[in-house]
This record gives sequence, C-alpha cells and structure tokens, in this order.
Amino acid sequence: MTTLALPTAPSEVRELIREGRLVQTTAGMSPGHVQANLAILPKEVAFDFLLFCQRNPRPCPLLEVVEAGEVEPSEFAPGADLRTDTPLYRVYEYGEMTAEVEDISEFWRDDLVSFLLGCSFSFENALTNVDIPIRHMEQDSTVPMFITNIPTASAGMFSGPMVVSMRPIKREQVVRAVQVTSRFPAVHGAPVHIGDPSAIGIGDVMKPDFGDPSEFEDGEVPVFWACGVTPQAAAMASKPPLMITHSPGHMFITDKKDEDLSVI
Amino acid sequence: MTTLALPTAPSEVRELIREGRLVQTTAGMSPGHVQANLAILPKEVAFDFLLFCQRNPRPCPLLEVVEAGEVEPSEFAPGADLRTDTPLYRVYEYGEMTAEVEDISEFWRDDLVSFLLGCSFSFENALTNVDIPIRHMEQDSTVPMFITNIPTASAGMFSGPMVVSMRPIKREQVVRAVQVTSRFPAVHGAPVHIGDPSAIGIGDVMKPDFGDPSEFEDGEVPVFWACGVTPQAAAMASKPPLMITHSPGHMFITDKKDEDLSVI
Repeated sequence: MTTLALPTAPSEVRELIREGRLVQTTAGMSPGHVQANLAILPKEVAFDFLLFCQRNPRPCPLLEVVEAGEVEPSEFAPGADLRTDTPLYRVYEYGEMTAEVEDISEFWRDDLVSFLLGCSFSFENALTNVDIPIRHMEQDSTVPMFITNIPTASAGMFSGPMVVSMRPIKREQVVRAVQVTSRFPAVHGAPVHIGDPSAIGIGDVMKPDFGDPSEFEDGEVPVFWACGVTPQAAAMASKPPLMITHSPGHMFITDKKDEDLSVI
Repeated sequence: MTTLALPTAPSEVRELIREGRLVQTTAGMSPGHVQANLAILPKEVAFDFLLFCQRNPRPCPLLEVVEAGEVEPSEFAPGADLRTDTPLYRVYEYGEMTAEVEDISEFWRDDLVSFLLGCSFSFENALTNVDIPIRHMEQDSTVPMFITNIPTASAGMFSGPMVVSMRPIKREQVVRAVQVTSRFPAVHGAPVHIGDPSAIGIGDVMKPDFGDPSEFEDGEVPVFWACGVTPQAAAMASKPPLMITHSPGHMFITDKKDEDLSVI
C-alpha cells in the first residue's frame, strides 16, 4: 500500500478528490482553510432556501450561493467544480436517499442552485488555537448532535427545529470559548446555549440524535452550538423532488482561510 | 402651531407616521433603535436581489426579508405595515421616479417582496457612544456619499460600483472607530477604507456624488463606510418594472435596539 503524502493547498486536495483518489472524511485536511457544508436544490425552491438561511444565520451561515447551472464557487474556490470536488455526495429524491456517489455529474441539471454553508471545523480551529480541547477529536468520534426545542424561523416550505452540536468545555474555559468563537459568525459563531441540556429540550446529553456521545470529565460543562444539519434536516423534511448534499464529514474544501471570515 | 411631544417607543412613532402626522426625516427618532433602508421589488427579481445582498453584505446588510404579498416585518417590527409606516416613499418604474408618497397602499401588489437593510444611523450611534463626533450631524447636513471604483459582486440583473459614505475622524480616534463599528456588521460594520480618497476612485472628497460636503478639521482623516445607497443604485440601474424605496433620510423605524445587532 502506498502512503499518500497529502498536499495542504486546497486546490491540490480538491484535485485528488476530483480524480477519485481521496474518498474519505476531510477533517484535518488543508489546515486553517474553510470547509463547507454543501446543499444543492432546484431553482424553484432556491429563493425560499436562501431566505431560510438568511433568517437563521446561526445554524445556516451562508458562505456562497452558486447560481442555477453554474458549478464553480468563484469566491470561495475559483476553478473548482462542485460536481466532482467533494469526496462523497448523497442524492435525495422527495426526502429519501437514493444514491451515495463520488461524482454527481450524471445528476446535474441546469436548474440546480448550490449553497455552501459554514461548518464547525472552522470554529473548532478557533478553540484549539487557544488550547481548548475538543473531546470528540480526542475520542476520534463524531461530534454529538441533538434536535432541540428551539424553533427556526420558517421560509416557504422550509421549517423545523434547530439542531445543535455539543462539546464538553472546562468550566474555566467557557468564557474564552464564547469569545473566540464569537469572532466567526460565518461558521456558526458563538454558542447558542451553555449548561443544562433540558433547557433546550435535550433529554439525555449522552444519547445524541446524530453522531457519538462525548464523555465528560470533572468540571466540564456542555456547550451547544448551532449545527449545519439544521438546514439539511429542514430541506429533507420538505421533501423536494431533488436535493444533493455532501456525505457527513466529507466536506467541500475552500481556498479561504478561517481567519478570512473573522468579523474582528 | 402645536409642538408635538414625540414618543420614543418605535411602535408609537410608527403610529404617528401611519396617521400621516410625522412626514419628516427620522434621524434622532426612537434613539438606540434600529432604523432601516427599505427596498420593495417584484418577486420575479427577488431571488437575484437577495443574492446580491448576500454577496455584498457590507453595502447591503440584510435585516429582514418580508415575503411576497406580506406587509408585516414580524421579526423587526411586529404589527407594523410596510405600506404606511415609513414617512415618505419613492416609487420607481423602469428606473424613473414616478411618485413620492406618504402611503404606498395604492401601489401595493401581492407579488411584492420587501427588504429591510441596515442603515448608518446605527453605527453612528456606536461612534457617538464613545464620543467620536459625526461632522455632518454637527453641520446639520446630509452625510457625503461617493461612487467608488470598488466593484460589487453581481447577481443576475444587479451589479454596479460600491457607494460609500465618508466621515472625518480625528487621527487618534480612527482605531477606536474601527473597533466600535466592527461590532455591528448588520449595519455596514467596519469601514471599507481609511485615508487617501483616490485609492478608491474618489477624485475630490469635497465634491460628493450625493449629500453635502463635510468640512475637515486639522488632524482629521477621511474614513469611508459602505453605504446603503449601493443596492438602491444597483437596483435602479437594472430598471425593474417597479421598485419602491423609502425617501432619503425617511427611514423605517424598527423595534430592535442597535445593541441587539452586535456580534460581540
């Protein structure tokens, strides 16, 4: 088996992905660069989805919208092709997954609008940069995610509860965690809730709706961030004729740096 | 002549406006509350305008989008009616102003989508709160605005240069001005340029394209912020069949406080 020396430049990583040589989750790839959630929908529902994102910026932080029929995110990844440059895609028809593929060229239509949304990897970098450890990384597991009782603002056919991700944070680091993630509203930003899970409708913090449970150590507090699964769940619940997303953890890697997105 | 003791609650001010008893510019009304630029466009161009705003958040900071046919901004001003609650409106047909009215009920159609955008009044409050004076307020004149050579990112039919407003700031207060306005990206946020006007295509800082010139005092630097005239200019240049806006300075007053919009 050949060990691949992975390049760090986003464009080079995307090229490997495009060639089908890198079908894996993208955590840790192109460190310091923004990775994005991908949602592709027909033009007929694009205005409502754009509005849903505008109304719910914490769970749905829009990075770039690529207009109907275009495949290049010219702001975040000039030269890229959204049909091939994500490692793995899921295709949904009327809310049911009908395919998981490495290339969506055969599904492409000229009326498809693509949405790139911020992802937790960026604010997790902001945390680790100030030595706040991320438990699910230490455990090598998937971040725990929960359906809350926090409503989103609906738009047209799109509605549903906010989904959050949870990270145990040492009590004395909670304020710092709020500060450093607040700089990045374009990638979920500050937490939506600190402490008591039941206050936002979570029955058991060790039984996530998606992902794996994160273990707690003494003196740690559960801290909850709005999660990019929210718009995907809202979109799927609305059962559009066609929707294409990245597969979980298999993100679209952009050329922008996390620091490019800080507001201060 | 009766002197009106003006209420400060936004809903009460809007009621006076609705009754036609307050047809004047809104500067200084409901202090500390967010005032908004208003742009109303037919649904057929609404997706492109929403996208234009999403792509140009500094000149086009979206506060709320009110869907086709609805007249109540339920997030920023529950109970308000966008057809009557702005003191003065301008109606444009194919890019030409055809009416200036206090009430747009007769022009209303069920396919009209309304956009509320952040306005400079909010970040000017952030400046005066830290004792940075605003020259055009001292002069009792209109803020000077300039068409720059900074391009916007186009979306569909909408494109054009960024328009900026300028305020002279004491050299030793420039950093503070950047800091306090950076907290408010939803109302234009941080400056887009500091210093040499020619660097952004402005020939003579004393000859604004819109508004009145602001006088400089010794040791003051011109500081430029993205301006809400940008999307209006882009929209008018595209000559849509119908567009309705507030009249300059006659803003829509919302229930939200400026501080509600700070990111940190």
